[in-house]
Amino acid sequence: MATIELADEADPRVRAVFADIRATRGNDVVNNFWRGLANNPALLERTWSALKAVMGEGHLDPLTKELVYVAVSIANGCSYCIHSHTAAARAKGLTPEQHGEFLIVVGMANQTNALVTGMQLAVDAAFLVGEQRPPTTSNI
Amino acid sequence: MATIELADEADPRVRAVFADIRATRGNDVVNNFWRGLANNPALLERTWSALKAVMGEGHLDPLTKELVYVAVSIANGCSYCIHSHTAAARAKGLTPEQHGEFLIVVGMANQTNALVTGMQLAVDAAFLVGEQRPPTTSNI
Amino acid sequence: MATIELADEADPRVRAVFADIRATRGNDVVNNFWRGLANNPALLERTWSALKAVMGEGHLDPLTKELVYVAVSIANGCSYCIHSHTAAARAKGLTPEQHGEFLIVVGMANQTNALVTGMQLAVDAAFLVGEQRPPTTSNI
Amino acid sequence: MATIELADEADPRVRAVFADIRATRGNDVVNNFWRGLANNPALLERTWSALKAVMGEGHLDPLTKELVYVAVSIANGCSYCIHSHTAAARAKGLTPEQHGEFLIVVGMANQTNALVTGMQLAVDAAFLVGEQRPPTTSNI
Amino acid sequence: MATIELADEADPRVRAVFADIRATRGNDVVNNFWRGLANNPALLERTWSALKAVMGEGHLDPLTKELVYVAVSIANGCSYCIHSHTAAARAKGLTPEQHGEFLIVVGMANQTNALVTGMQLAVDAAFLVGEQRPPTTSNI
Amino acid sequence: MATIELADEADPRVRAVFADIRATRGNDVVNNFWRGLANNPALLERTWSALKAVMGEGHLDPLTKELVYVAVSIANGCSYCIHSHTAAARAKGLTPEQHGEFLIVVGMANQTNALVTGMQLAVDAAFLVGEQRPPTTSNI
Repeated sequence: MATIELADEADPRVRAVFADIRATRGNDVVNNFWRGLANNPALLERTWSALKAVMGEGHLDPLTKELVYVAVSIANGCSYCIHSHTAAARAKGLTPEQHGEFLIVVGMANQTNALVTGMQLAVDAAFLVGEQRPPTTSNI
Repeated sequence: MATIELADEADPRVRAVFADIRATRGNDVVNNFWRGLANNPALLERTWSALKAVMGEGHLDPLTKELVYVAVSIANGCSYCIHSHTAAARAKGLTPEQHGEFLIVVGMANQTNALVTGMQLAVDAAFLVGEQRPPTTSNI
Repeated sequence: MATIELADEADPRVRAVFADIRATRGNDVVNNFWRGLANNPALLERTWSALKAVMGEGHLDPLTKELVYVAVSIANGCSYCIHSHTAAARAKGLTPEQHGEFLIVVGMANQTNALVTGMQLAVDAAFLVGEQRPPTTSNI
Repeated sequence: MATIELADEADPRVRAVFADIRATRGNDVVNNFWRGLANNPALLERTWSALKAVMGEGHLDPLTKELVYVAVSIANGCSYCIHSHTAAARAKGLTPEQHGEFLIVVGMANQTNALVTGMQLAVDAAFLVGEQRPPTTSNI
Repeated sequence: MATIELADEADPRVRAVFADIRATRGNDVVNNFWRGLANNPALLERTWSALKAVMGEGHLDPLTKELVYVAVSIANGCSYCIHSHTAAARAKGLTPEQHGEFLIVVGMANQTNALVTGMQLAVDAAFLVGEQRPPTTSNI
Repeated sequence: MATIELADEADPRVRAVFADIRATRGNDVVNNFWRGLANNPALLERTWSALKAVMGEGHLDPLTKELVYVAVSIANGCSYCIHSHTAAARAKGLTPEQHGEFLIVVGMANQTNALVTGMQLAVDAAFLVGEQRPPTTSNI
């Protein structure tokens, strides 16, 4: 399984990131995603530091951001991502009732997306934002 | 534009749903999605009542659910849905700072989904939930 | 495997739906999809009654509807759904020759979808339906 | 609009395919898809002959195949394809009632696909077909 | 696993294609994709001859074309395809460094695609190509 | 059109990035993608510097990377991205013949992805890479 080997911790940059992952989470697990990225230490560093910065407290709360992450992962059919970010959402307090409601919303969004796309409806003027430009010839 | 006509309000079931949409939102706009569904009054009734029940207060707050809706709509590339549910999120209090942070999360989720999918990583045992069954022969 | 536990049949609403599934299909199998939904009895009830109403005889024949279901499931890459609805299509009479032809159509649709999307062609006026509105400034 | 020019009919191979398109359909329209492909006469010939062979009478009826085509196009979000194949389905007899029922099936398929994918359910043994091989180590 | 049986080599048309696959690749492996298609010898022949013609030397080099193939397969979440075409790319000389850079490009493309789709930006006039037509009423 | 306003150049961080975009490309155009991101100067800076670093000379040549970018954008149905990166590929030397061959490869990849996904084939052992772990119970 996999199209690449999981990397070990020989590289000092990898070791440093893995140490920060363990410290941040307060446990010893470094999951396969980080071990896969570790084949490219620069990518590992950049991805970890971006994720750590974005997924913590900010303008949106961490649980909301995890649910957005899982929603995208479901739409993309990324099994690994659905498993790992659902686990992360639970670690941030997601209850079974919230998880059930979340799945219902995701299901409805996919359903109504398909209905809209099948009908190819024009966007109502009320929803448009931003600088309006002269009509172009495009109609895709 | 569109693969169907937008329906008028001649049908009494359509009129009833449109009246409830206007009352619920406190304005007079009935956007094209509902006018498209109105070709099939039963579908219109079912979709409106499901959406009204799910998107209000529940185990998750309404803004979180709108953001999940927009995230799915972005992943599905549904232009109409992105416009309408971003507008709905704004109506529920989404600030420009939150919108920016939301877009960053969606962007990162799509990026890491692609990295994981490209590496085809096995799901870590720590993320698995539920009744464990004997190994099958499947490896998709 | 899975992000949730499969539910048992302790809840009376779950028992009632499972009994109807068994009676409708004339066998004893209740597959994992329903056992997963059973964590939320209201969702289980709503999904089963909607699916039962939609997938039976109607304006389209049941086999056609199963094939549409499989086509969507392939496009979404939902492995479970492809397996379960291909089995359902066989139960409704799908022959190996029809299955082969179906796969060819799905393959061609994905191929020509990609060609069209790569070329970003304007929709021919002859294909447009519905109330025509004044040009907007949109060109996505 | 578009990433390529639409080709004219100067090339004799293009002229021959366009003549066959007009004769097959019994009207004078050659829609933009074929004019885009005409930049590459070999691709135009191959695509037209494949589509003509597959979409006519076979093991499945032509209308069923058009609906499968539209379902894939909706899942892929291909606006041009949804417009052109919905028009083709109408030309093959699709009624408004059938179109409505079709959209409901597509909507439900997308909804249940998302629910299944979110729960990451194991495929029931009853749905598996084909040569069973020894368990592998894969668990994506 | 699978929704179809893998076919054997009893059919002479299948035997001929399998022989050509073995000769072209210089080894004895005929992978599951071809064994699945072999249920429909005409589809097997057409797919093999198309793939052989397209993926060899042409206006683009074979490695570039394999990487395009893997990129599409990642976006579609096709696990089998990602494995087989990553292996094919390696056989055509893909180095680990190139593979890493490729994954970074795919990740960034998915990220910026999502940002653009979330913002629903109008296409700049400078990017438009092809015959310009009068404005239509479409704004999807 | 759009769910956000395009930002102006008042912010000094925005001005600095726009100046670098103009200098790097040797022309005065700053396309809408950057103007949209400019609502969030930190995101603008990070995205531009990442894209500039990744899309230049590296282990893969710039044109190959643009084609990978376009392939992902087609699979995601991102109209803006397809237009802008096809234009970028042309600026890096893509010929009409190469563009045609590229579209054929993308079309075939989508076609065979769908065939494989419809058949739900097991990955051949020959394609598997990386640390092999004991069989799990997963079969998605």
